[in-house]
Amino acid sequence: MGKIDIQQLDDIANHLRVDSIKMTCAAKSGHPTSSCSAAEIIATLFFNEMKLDKTLPKNPSSDRFVLSKGHACPVLYAAWHQAGHISTNDMMNIRKITCDLEGHPTPRLDFIDVATGSLGQGLSCAAGMAYVGKYIDKASYRVYCLLGDGECAEAFASYYKLDNLVAIVDMNRLGQTQQTMLGHDADTMAKRFDSFGCHAIVVDGSNVVELLNAYSTARQTKGKPTAIVAKTLKGKGIVGIEDEDNWHGKPVPESTIEAIEQILTNKADIAGTLQMKPPVNDAPNVELPIGHIKMAPPTYSLGDKVATRQAYGTALAKLGDACPRIIGLDGDTKNSTFSEKLLKKHPEQFVECFIAEQNLVGVAVGLQCRDRAIPFASTFAAFFTRAADQLRMAAVSFANIKCAGSHVGVSIGEDGPSQMGLEDIALFRTIPGSIVFYPTDAVAAERATELAANTRGIAFIRTGRPACPVIYSNDEKFEIGKGKIVHDANKPKALIIGAGVTLYEAKKAADKLQLESVEVIVMDLFTIKPLDKDLIVKSAKRAENRIITVEDHYQAGGIGEAVCQAVSDQKDIRVRSLFILDVPHSGPPDVLLEKYGISAKHIVDAVHQSIHPPN
Amino acid sequence: MGKIDIQQLDDIANHLRVDSIKMTCAAKSGHPTSSCSAAEIIATLFFNEMKLDKTLPKNPSSDRFVLSKGHACPVLYAAWHQAGHISTNDMMNIRKITCDLEGHPTPRLDFIDVATGSLGQGLSCAAGMAYVGKYIDKASYRVYCLLGDGECAEAFASYYKLDNLVAIVDMNRLGQTQQTMLGHDADTMAKRFDSFGCHAIVVDGSNVVELLNAYSTARQTKGKPTAIVAKTLKGKGIVGIEDEDNWHGKPVPESTIEAIEQILTNKADIAGTLQMKPPVNDAPNVELPIGHIKMAPPTYSLGDKVATRQAYGTALAKLGDACPRIIGLDGDTKNSTFSEKLLKKHPEQFVECFIAEQNLVGVAVGLQCRDRAIPFASTFAAFFTRAADQLRMAAVSFANIKCAGSHVGVSIGEDGPSQMGLEDIALFRTIPGSIVFYPTDAVAAERATELAANTRGIAFIRTGRPACPVIYSNDEKFEIGKGKIVHDANKPKALIIGAGVTLYEAKKAADKLQLESVEVIVMDLFTIKPLDKDLIVKSAKRAENRIITVEDHYQAGGIGEAVCQAVSDQKDIRVRSLFILDVPHSGPPDVLLEKYGISAKHIVDAVHQSIHPPN
Repeated sequence: MGKIDIQQLDDIANHLRVDSIKMTCAAKSGHPTSSCSAAEIIATLFFNEMKLDKTLPKNPSSDRFVLSKGHACPVLYAAWHQAGHISTNDMMNIRKITCDLEGHPTPRLDFIDVATGSLGQGLSCAAGMAYVGKYIDKASYRVYCLLGDGECAEAFASYYKLDNLVAIVDMNRLGQTQQTMLGHDADTMAKRFDSFGCHAIVVDGSNVVELLNAYSTARQTKGKPTAIVAKTLKGKGIVGIEDEDNWHGKPVPESTIEAIEQILTNKADIAGTLQMKPPVNDAPNVELPIGHIKMAPPTYSLGDKVATRQAYGTALAKLGDACPRIIGLDGDTKNSTFSEKLLKKHPEQFVECFIAEQNLVGVAVGLQCRDRAIPFASTFAAFFTRAADQLRMAAVSFANIKCAGSHVGVSIGEDGPSQMGLEDIALFRTIPGSIVFYPTDAVAAERATELAANTRGIAFIRTGRPACPVIYSNDEKFEIGKGKIVHDANKPKALIIGAGVTLYEAKKAADKLQLESVEVIVMDLFTIKPLDKDLIVKSAKRAENRIITVEDHYQAGGIGEAVCQAVSDQKDIRVRSLFILDVPHSGPPDVLLEKYGISAKHIVDAVHQSIHPPN
Repeated sequence: MGKIDIQQLDDIANHLRVDSIKMTCAAKSGHPTSSCSAAEIIATLFFNEMKLDKTLPKNPSSDRFVLSKGHACPVLYAAWHQAGHISTNDMMNIRKITCDLEGHPTPRLDFIDVATGSLGQGLSCAAGMAYVGKYIDKASYRVYCLLGDGECAEAFASYYKLDNLVAIVDMNRLGQTQQTMLGHDADTMAKRFDSFGCHAIVVDGSNVVELLNAYSTARQTKGKPTAIVAKTLKGKGIVGIEDEDNWHGKPVPESTIEAIEQILTNKADIAGTLQMKPPVNDAPNVELPIGHIKMAPPTYSLGDKVATRQAYGTALAKLGDACPRIIGLDGDTKNSTFSEKLLKKHPEQFVECFIAEQNLVGVAVGLQCRDRAIPFASTFAAFFTRAADQLRMAAVSFANIKCAGSHVGVSIGEDGPSQMGLEDIALFRTIPGSIVFYPTDAVAAERATELAANTRGIAFIRTGRPACPVIYSNDEKFEIGKGKIVHDANKPKALIIGAGVTLYEAKKAADKLQLESVEVIVMDLFTIKPLDKDLIVKSAKRAENRIITVEDHYQAGGIGEAVCQAVSDQKDIRVRSLFILDVPHSGPPDVLLEKYGISAKHIVDAVHQSIHPPN
């Protein structure tokens, strides 16, 4: 490649930068800086390295490109613009409801194969494409995946120099159905732990001397965790079964015990006689004042516009004043979730877990063991789905953890569906014994945070992105499982149930209906689980047995279904539910509430239809 | 440490082996081979290395032990038995409903801090404990975590030698809220990719010559994927913003464009004129025959006892005959999910993804891009929660993937709650446009698999562990969204709705009720989403407006809520729902159905209460 081409590519990179800046300026949102760092990478890939078909972007023979760091999509859109596939006009409409150049890329665009924007997923999808190319298509196309460095954050233990942690891998070679990926290649396993900042040691895992030496080395290792890769045999010591396949998860013949007993040097039954080394009693005594953690009260004025995520941060910082064992954790979103308020006030009470939400929740579960801490883990609500298995297991662990998920629903607007929490209520409602808070205003959000701290178990606090008016006075009392009537009437014809942004829509709807002399009750749930069944049933009965639920969430497992379930033993009550019907699009919050069916207008229509049902 | 102690430790290890074998023989289930490989590790940890308090296992100053490979708990229980904390009698009652020594460990035991059994989580929890020990307690206790080698399976791309895959890390140093874990330490990042079997190359990511050389090297690299770690600057080229904090996700001033334009060597607007290299057209033409994939019909006899997971495997293998682009994937559970039937018949149509379910789903999404394949990914239903974020994003990708989750509900029995799918219906119902199959018998399971293959989108097939009688004839027609009345009556007093194991309980209940002259209708849902609302409403109206739902699943987002929602616009219909109320315990399936409230007896009681509601 000659000099002139290099210059051309440099120029192209700078054109991509210019386009990225222009697009995000036009959209008044987006990620130009994350785009600009990748300009040369994209320029060289698209205009020299990759083989692509501009007129048929999904040509099966084309190379594939996966933008795992989906937020950098302006630079990708710019490349397709420079190639002539996207018009300047389209490009300048990025993030608008009318344009499929969304805030994060989706296959609504013909040059996108997989949606990205939830970090840490692109490489798996790219690997699937590469697998099909190499082994099924047996074709020459190649797969390129661009990752962010922030999404490669799986080294928590070494980052925090946890030299009091020893990981031991029982490398017994056999999985449930076949040999594991590495078999007995202990050196490669050790290299992996080493590369993640552990002191890695390979030992014969059936040799007690080697094990003891490794533990001793671990104790002397400062500034990093130790990983001991212990080569063992599955079924070690069981004659005829040791190191054999097809013996996973099955009892073995009792007759195999004899051979093991024969090699004992001391044949006596020692059970119950063995000593363990006692602990050094240097852990401080901690009595978590759960139930008595008093937070300084909220200090808002009615009508102040405050996002509930912001109020969450305020409350968390105040709870941190009240209890030094309240620990905030976040996944590099602390300026979005406002958990940074705790960090700023009490840096020693905050743990940055970076973009690895599965680890965020796992670390929180670890923190709370033996009542050492009350962890509050926060990130975008959508990203808690990354930790759904950890949350499920946290329930089996009877863990005491608090999760705060911000940026819920379509009301986040332009960033698009990958960033919208639309299944988080369902996720947290499935957790046995969980409490699901959905505070509507800042006062409620502060109280929800305080109540979460003061109640054992798994709690979720659903917070919103937009700043909304304060509707409760600072001394309003909130209780778990108790809703509020925020708009009442003498002769109501329907009960409207909302929470968060939809409560404001419900209030607007009530005002509109009042103009038509249709009176309604509006109820704010405060907690989705437990649900205030009594108040719902009582209010519905007053309101001619009609309920309308409205939520910025998908249907399954959401508010509507919870309410339907709660009134399912009641005769006569009928429920009409409004929820997000489909995968949303980027756009302004108001437009999205309207388009996806949860705005005041839709609520008014639902009330009318409820009163005069179509046949 | 002297010679005698070494011998003692060897003896203790063998005692642990003997105990592990005895326990699992008594339980007639469990994992002795996975226990025996770790005997010396546990013996040396518990009787020499760790500092523990036998009488107060949760002494805050004690060392912590996390058994990430939770299925090896017999060897852990044996250690506590040898130490005298667990009686021989208790030990021999492992996995019984009356004994907290469950199939996988939970904090019901006083020496367990976190439940394990869902692999890949223990180290996060251990890291949380180590963090609190080092930085918050500032105490000397240490944390030990024992992992299985099978749960360290994050190297899919190199395992399959995907040399057509290039991962490029845009290492721009800055995350959303602070510097990333590694900052600009590109060598460490490269070492990580290298240790996972990639050819890792570090380049200046803003230097197009270095990038082009790296791509060229990647093309010449055979037998392994390439990872290019590209050192870049966030906001590269934007004056005053480049490499600065606090500019994530924000537009930058439009005035910054000028400086970039000035460095262009060719100032002309080149947009639309740029060429891309065209593809080499060597990918085969594939037309997926979706809608026309014909499977050889089922060949069962009524009453045959066949698990639906087994029928899934049979159907998958037959679908593999019919369409070479049907690809099975599994997470090292293929002999449990029976996806191995496809592997055995068509090895080239199967991809083992090992124990990394997030990657399993990610790879499936990648496989289906551009209609290259119809992927069927299977594992235990519970473990799809590991991939909840990937599933959410698969919907945003409009992906065509099929998931089959086995081992659902308490009916799996002794393995305990970590292995029980109890939120999988909710998880898959939240996916926009998804289809959720819950076939009751083997015929229905085969047809569900065939229908899933023939319908675009995301489908979930919920299969069960126990072998249950075939109730449908081989030529029974099944449709998406159509339930079946499996027991009818002239003057029914209630409609009982079930699926899977609970349908058999419902049928038993119907028979019992018949003896008391209480007639009922029993409906098998077949698909939970879409739900056969018409048949439900019609049948409920015939049955005096009473519905009883019963499911082997938690309440939130499950069958009961779906049914309540479906009838919420109906006057008079009342629903009573039976579901799993709490975190279950290990025990025999029948005992668990009884204990957790979803057995025939509970259904009979619910019908009675429905007819004669208490005040």
